[in-house]
Amino acid sequence: MSNYKGQLKIIPLGGLEEVGRNMTAFEFNEKEIIIIDAGLGYPYFEEMPGIDFTIPNVEYLEKNKDKILGILITHAHYDHIGAIPYLIEKIGNPPIYATPLSRGIILKRQDDFPNAPKLEVHEIRKDKIKPFQLGSFLINYFHVNHNIPDSIGYFIQTPVGNIMHTGDFKIDFTPFFDKPANLSRIVKLALKGVRLLMIDSTNAYQPGFVASEKVIMENLESIFRKAQGRIIAATFASLLERIQQLVWLSGLYGRKVVLDGRTLRTNIEVARQLKYLQTPRGIFIKPEDSFRLPPYQVTIICTGSQAEEGSALMKIALGEHKYFKIIPGDTVIFSSSIVPGNERVIQELKDDLQKQGAKIYHYQMMDIHASGHAFADEINLFINLVKPEYLMPVHGHYFMLKAVEEIGLNLGMSPERILIAQNGQVVKMTPEKIFVSHERVPANIVYVDGLGVGDVEEVVIRDRQNLARDGIFVVIATINSATGQLRTSPDIISRGFIYLRESKQLLREVRNLVKKIIERNIRFLGDESPLIQEEQIKYSLKEEIAEFLFKKTQRRPVVIPVVIKV
Amino acid sequence: MSNYKGQLKIIPLGGLEEVGRNMTAFEFNEKEIIIIDAGLGYPYFEEMPGIDFTIPNVEYLEKNKDKILGILITHAHYDHIGAIPYLIEKIGNPPIYATPLSRGIILKRQDDFPNAPKLEVHEIRKDKIKPFQLGSFLINYFHVNHNIPDSIGYFIQTPVGNIMHTGDFKIDFTPFFDKPANLSRIVKLALKGVRLLMIDSTNAYQPGFVASEKVIMENLESIFRKAQGRIIAATFASLLERIQQLVWLSGLYGRKVVLDGRTLRTNIEVARQLKYLQTPRGIFIKPEDSFRLPPYQVTIICTGSQAEEGSALMKIALGEHKYFKIIPGDTVIFSSSIVPGNERVIQELKDDLQKQGAKIYHYQMMDIHASGHAFADEINLFINLVKPEYLMPVHGHYFMLKAVEEIGLNLGMSPERILIAQNGQVVKMTPEKIFVSHERVPANIVYVDGLGVGDVEEVVIRDRQNLARDGIFVVIATINSATGQLRTSPDIISRGFIYLRESKQLLREVRNLVKKIIERNIRFLGDESPLIQEEQIKYSLKEEIAEFLFKKTQRRPVVIPVVIKV
Repeated sequence: MSNYKGQLKIIPLGGLEEVGRNMTAFEFNEKEIIIIDAGLGYPYFEEMPGIDFTIPNVEYLEKNKDKILGILITHAHYDHIGAIPYLIEKIGNPPIYATPLSRGIILKRQDDFPNAPKLEVHEIRKDKIKPFQLGSFLINYFHVNHNIPDSIGYFIQTPVGNIMHTGDFKIDFTPFFDKPANLSRIVKLALKGVRLLMIDSTNAYQPGFVASEKVIMENLESIFRKAQGRIIAATFASLLERIQQLVWLSGLYGRKVVLDGRTLRTNIEVARQLKYLQTPRGIFIKPEDSFRLPPYQVTIICTGSQAEEGSALMKIALGEHKYFKIIPGDTVIFSSSIVPGNERVIQELKDDLQKQGAKIYHYQMMDIHASGHAFADEINLFINLVKPEYLMPVHGHYFMLKAVEEIGLNLGMSPERILIAQNGQVVKMTPEKIFVSHERVPANIVYVDGLGVGDVEEVVIRDRQNLARDGIFVVIATINSATGQLRTSPDIISRGFIYLRESKQLLREVRNLVKKIIERNIRFLGDESPLIQEEQIKYSLKEEIAEFLFKKTQRRPVVIPVVIKV
Repeated sequence: MSNYKGQLKIIPLGGLEEVGRNMTAFEFNEKEIIIIDAGLGYPYFEEMPGIDFTIPNVEYLEKNKDKILGILITHAHYDHIGAIPYLIEKIGNPPIYATPLSRGIILKRQDDFPNAPKLEVHEIRKDKIKPFQLGSFLINYFHVNHNIPDSIGYFIQTPVGNIMHTGDFKIDFTPFFDKPANLSRIVKLALKGVRLLMIDSTNAYQPGFVASEKVIMENLESIFRKAQGRIIAATFASLLERIQQLVWLSGLYGRKVVLDGRTLRTNIEVARQLKYLQTPRGIFIKPEDSFRLPPYQVTIICTGSQAEEGSALMKIALGEHKYFKIIPGDTVIFSSSIVPGNERVIQELKDDLQKQGAKIYHYQMMDIHASGHAFADEINLFINLVKPEYLMPVHGHYFMLKAVEEIGLNLGMSPERILIAQNGQVVKMTPEKIFVSHERVPANIVYVDGLGVGDVEEVVIRDRQNLARDGIFVVIATINSATGQLRTSPDIISRGFIYLRESKQLLREVRNLVKKIIERNIRFLGDESPLIQEEQIKYSLKEEIAEFLFKKTQRRPVVIPVVIKV
């Protein structure tokens, strides 16, 4: 007989079957809720054109906001904290718990949202561990490696069993600026019993261990040793450990550093203030000052490793940067992994840079970037250390979750002890067992587009996709109410369909078709006054013009008929 | 003193700084032109939304069509023959020279274009080599490995030196159904002297040798040995060697084969008729007949390895296939490489299939696909065998071309003997030297979209991209000519911008703005009749509405003002 009491619902609102948008709620006895992380996701153009990013649907939490005791943050990457400004008010602005660097970045980012509420962010420290109680939850935490400092996992004791959540993690025995993941502490916590281990699955399909940051540092150093001109290093603003390495090496090799990218600068500012970044005095200079130095004394750290539109590196490559263009002899380092889907644009960017005379280094040529997410053997190790009763892979696409499942099975766990859930599927933890229940809460993707949150819906996305494929074709027919005749030749407006100036014949034919459709749809009453069947005209125009255009061009533009009666 | 006479222009019309759209013209003394290949390219949605594929601009050849003596085909892949139906008439329908399989596929495809002219395709045979003369060009050819049978390279003797062109090639010492590339013949030809080697660069950046088809076959066989249910193998319709292996193994393991995909079936039909495919009698069955067999006696070979919309495998995964859905226990083999940019959609497809109970094999897990393009050491070997004076990498993105350059430099060639050109840049071969000249011919991308060839231009593509990002916003203002007043509240049509039904307030504000703009732009003449400054109204509407919408939403839909005077 177990001593477990009550029921815990684990409610994944994002981060399952996707990478990003991480957010999970834990609800005990339908009275108390805690949340781990509140991140955003990055959409793909083809699937969600024009969308800036995606956030979780928090409808369920909104309804239950009085129960929310706090949000626990694992680390300061936007896929774990980025949704906070968008949803915190909706869920009652609960207190947030975060390590100092995460706290600093969360608060700094909130300043960008003047209408968002002031946050209550409590600091929790890895150097002075203090477990704390939130209702029935006793919260503890432990240090893990990732590629931003101050990353932690959580150990949460509940009346119905203990849950360990790794956050994003890897295990690096020889990190360069960080300490190794605190394995002894993890084991010490685990000895209290781990009923459920929720583990980062992002890289579970990769065999072995992630390369140590020590190796990365050595390889980066070999590039610094050889570089004769400027070094331009493109990375994510959030990869603070990589940035630390680049700054450190610049100091070592007598280079000054220009930082290019707003988030990059603010992240570094926060990290420096909180002493998470070791930066030689006076190492940072303004872009314009770099021209007073010989090229071999300049490092430019910038965004654009994914060839993002408008990023510093893209501007440099396109010759549109305010200060910099490629000087033959420049060394460009792509110091981040490639987000799937970006392979081609990144390759084009590299081609452009190479043509302009840059020497390119990227991680496929040399270990100059290591992922922040554990590979299979680290997951093996972790599971072996904590010996959970149940295992629930999180943070990843389906095949990543399944890769963790396979690891679990290979370690002898029974299939029903490994929980593969989807966003919105409630996982229930009862005294008897843990299982994926049939209960569901809303967990669809919410789009953020410009200032709009949630105002772009599926139908708008589908319209954008259709518009992108074959454009739009608007026909405006102005009909004289008195005569039932077209007042003038119909106006036609089209974008993204064909080049109208060179399609006069087609337009003529469409105009004739419009005329015919209208004539056919006008009936005359006894007194010879016309009955203009507007809806029917619109319907016919839409259908018949679409069909006609398809026959002529094999394209299907969005056809919009406008009928104006005057 | 050399015996070289005259001048040869090598005019790449496609295939440089890109993969696909391969086409090169060779013009001797401005009198005689021969062409190698005429392929199409595959566009990327984000860059060229809605475009089906791209073909070379043949303006230059059109002007010089009387000089064209023939088109030499290297092999039957669409990136080498696919543009023929679109451009053959423009360039005067010159004779085509091709090996039997290539010839068969070219002729079969031409049937799909009832309005295109009848082709004159001469057969050239690898088993009965007969060099032939086209004007001053003496044409010879040699067998290479690729992943479609009957692939050849060309050896072209001209008064100004001999040119060797590899076509798409690899060197496989143990191919399974093909013979090894004919190295002794290649050397024998090369002993006549190779002034210029044009070499396939697609995989030059990959170290080592391509895995042999023998290894691929063994790995595929291990999957057949283990599979308990149906085998569903997705591949390209053009990978005839892979298809041959799958059919052969099916026969060996007592499976019948369903072919799903139109091009797949026609390619196989042509190849069988010409005896390029060894197929056990009665192995092919209709989809509906597969249900009479136990799953372990069924193989389905289909398209969709790139997760293409509408492909058989996609339909199966989405449950939209006429005959098939996944049965737990099915084995799905992705037997092709991933076209860069497709990584993410393919992963999603795999996830879907796996969720439905399929076991997935893809080439990252096991060598079950080998590229058809030589890796670095094959290129090394080839250069060492033929010892060219000059080297010109073809078929590939800039970094691929550069990878061949690096190989050449490592082999001790001097930099000016390695020619990196762009499409449209004329390479000149004179008695003294070969060099990339300043002469250029038009070589932009021509878009094929539905039935339109070249009618979609840059401006249309840009419109589609803009529409995709933020949609369209059409404002229709009907103005009474007599009063200068709006007749009714302006009509607003929008797609892909926001969900209008939930944006009533925004629409109200836009309507008010329209009203104000129109009032401001109407002047009244002495007799109080209004002067409606239509162009100015349109301009103001466009600018001010765009600005207003951006301020309100941070989005930039395409704003189209329509002013109707009644």
